[in-house]
Amino acid sequence: MTWVELPEGTGFGIDNLPLGVFLARGRVGFRHGVRIGDLVLDLFETTGERVHQTGALDSFLIAGPGAWRDRREQVTEWLTEERHRARVEPHLIPVDDVQLHRPIGVPNYVDFYSSRQHAENVGRLFRPGTDPLPPNWLHLPIGYHGRPGTVDVSGTPVVRPCGQLGAPDDGGLPPFGPTRKLDFEAEVGFVVGAPGERLTVADFPEHVFGVCLVNDWSARDLQAWEYVPLGPMLGKSFLTSMSPWVVPLAALEAARVAPPERETELLPYLRDDGDPWGLDLALEVRLNGEVISRPPFRGTYWTAAQQLAHLTVNGAPALAGELFASGTVSGATRAEWGSLLELSANGAEPLRLGDGSTRTFLEDGDTVTISATAPGVNGGRISLGEVTGTVQPAR
Amino acid sequence: MTWVELPEGTGFGIDNLPLGVFLARGRVGFRHGVRIGDLVLDLFETTGERVHQTGALDSFLIAGPGAWRDRREQVTEWLTEERHRARVEPHLIPVDDVQLHRPIGVPNYVDFYSSRQHAENVGRLFRPGTDPLPPNWLHLPIGYHGRPGTVDVSGTPVVRPCGQLGAPDDGGLPPFGPTRKLDFEAEVGFVVGAPGERLTVADFPEHVFGVCLVNDWSARDLQAWEYVPLGPMLGKSFLTSMSPWVVPLAALEAARVAPPERETELLPYLRDDGDPWGLDLALEVRLNGEVISRPPFRGTYWTAAQQLAHLTVNGAPALAGELFASGTVSGATRAEWGSLLELSANGAEPLRLGDGSTRTFLEDGDTVTISATAPGVNGGRISLGEVTGTVQPAR
Repeated sequence: MTWVELPEGTGFGIDNLPLGVFLARGRVGFRHGVRIGDLVLDLFETTGERVHQTGALDSFLIAGPGAWRDRREQVTEWLTEERHRARVEPHLIPVDDVQLHRPIGVPNYVDFYSSRQHAENVGRLFRPGTDPLPPNWLHLPIGYHGRPGTVDVSGTPVVRPCGQLGAPDDGGLPPFGPTRKLDFEAEVGFVVGAPGERLTVADFPEHVFGVCLVNDWSARDLQAWEYVPLGPMLGKSFLTSMSPWVVPLAALEAARVAPPERETELLPYLRDDGDPWGLDLALEVRLNGEVISRPPFRGTYWTAAQQLAHLTVNGAPALAGELFASGTVSGATRAEWGSLLELSANGAEPLRLGDGSTRTFLEDGDTVTISATAPGVNGGRISLGEVTGTVQPAR
Repeated sequence: MTWVELPEGTGFGIDNLPLGVFLARGRVGFRHGVRIGDLVLDLFETTGERVHQTGALDSFLIAGPGAWRDRREQVTEWLTEERHRARVEPHLIPVDDVQLHRPIGVPNYVDFYSSRQHAENVGRLFRPGTDPLPPNWLHLPIGYHGRPGTVDVSGTPVVRPCGQLGAPDDGGLPPFGPTRKLDFEAEVGFVVGAPGERLTVADFPEHVFGVCLVNDWSARDLQAWEYVPLGPMLGKSFLTSMSPWVVPLAALEAARVAPPERETELLPYLRDDGDPWGLDLALEVRLNGEVISRPPFRGTYWTAAQQLAHLTVNGAPALAGELFASGTVSGATRAEWGSLLELSANGAEPLRLGDGSTRTFLEDGDTVTISATAPGVNGGRISLGEVTGTVQPAR
């Protein structure tokens, strides 16, 4: 259908067309690009529009869903009709020849806690013998604000953070040093395009442009010591990685599914009976190349549409280029859990790897890669790309 | 000393010179300005430098402490030496003729919890009969990330937020509607100028440009229901107000004091025995014009230098134009408490006002104004200006 030569089994066919931001030799400034196969289409050169020559997609996304739709139709036409080929082909660059950047400005970053299995796993580890879910969990999508300035693109090195590792043993000083419990969290991120206030569940596709993958790296010892009463801070703020390609909601129509049945009645602003935004995304987590988990996003209790309605219900506007993420995605079985905290039972049950080694938490040199696919509108599967990072020793 | 005519008792004399961002009729674009008396000096017109024609001080502050010092010396010379008068005077604009904007870009916003009296007051209200301080409180400055996109300038209307007001009474739906417990928090904010990583307590004046006033508006019912386990979210994210003028640390040399004696030994990265950054700022809170509290900042347990060292110890860089705040400032006596939560004992002991009315929490139409002064380097007192806001009905 497209005249572009696609690698066998690519997840970046004509039914995907995710957006990203890149630098490339000989092209002035940051450019917005569309990925097709193993190539990147330079949107600034092909459109001549300055909104595509900035360091973040925000400048384009702020124009809203009409502009997103028009651009997608135009790019689809350029890449499928032979008559456009001579003009467009010179602006296709091999993806290996571009430097991909954080695709959005991230004026705000919110991380939710919307996988029930994850919340229950964590509750059982830290509050054994009690109800694993906090009393508010079934009534609202719990979330907190993270540090926007340390959201960075896939590939950014994960320097092992230092900090206070826990309570003093003997009434003296708290232990201090590099974290001993460095962890990943496999998450799905949502990119706000069109700003808005007091958004309803139904407003979701008019304001959220698309989806990416997020790894909210965590230092569990720092986090456990600091988080009462104001929540996670240094245990999370050293780095959050996101995938470089934002897959438009328009490419995920075939991935829409009903979310799990709700256990309690919800307040009107959170109801999504009509047109819910569950998404059948199949995540895969690799540690040094070996698959250690396959978290299924489709079972996530709170949808992104509910999260957006919740985070704006108090009047806080959502801004172009802001990011909110699902929180760790975990399924029902151990093979589907999205963090080492869960996979190793907080270090009590080391994970055995194919090479005979074991892991409780991440070691220096470890590489964690999270990827995902979804059903495409033309059949087959589209790719959400990947978010990867390698642990470096503490500085 | 200055040739500028100053109003009697102004806190904006030649020993203050705070920076802000403004729009004014006939002047293209945002401008950086220096306040002197009731006038604003247009820094773009007087210097001709484009870094002063942007919507945030960040573009100038990022140049670092040498540039801050040079600019301050230059402005001082211009405003004191008669020979500069003819050139400079046309660029002085009455402060009433400019529109003041949020002075910084706020790529990150962190709020601490560094007043011991406040933390103990809150602990006594919510966890009676137990140690009012969480176990980590004396070992680290507890803080959390707020929502940068809703930090706005003094004068921004405070629209009463809606949300979930608490647990369901009867196993049904949680109560929902406009908050019944709208509160203010009197705080001091610190503006990062020069970016940096792993900053020490001693690095503080090389990286932090100056000080402002912050009101971290809070909806106590939303907050109490949502904050376990990930901290405050919708109860705070609807608005945080900051004063328009950032007072340079250079103007606060005479305000430096020793912080309270530390009850426990601190980890090396938090020690500040040599050159501590306690600040003798006298805050005043007015409700509809009546003084209801005078929180003394000098008694704050954790200094801003310790807060900055803590928030960067894990490797998170501090960025130009980011804001971190002290948390509510409360002194030893009721007349010095910095929130209605404390002043009304969470609504149990209404505050009696001069007009005979009472308040537990804020009512629609109420105006809260926080101001502060500090000893100036030339004797007398300098002003930190004020941060004000009026409550509007829920939408």
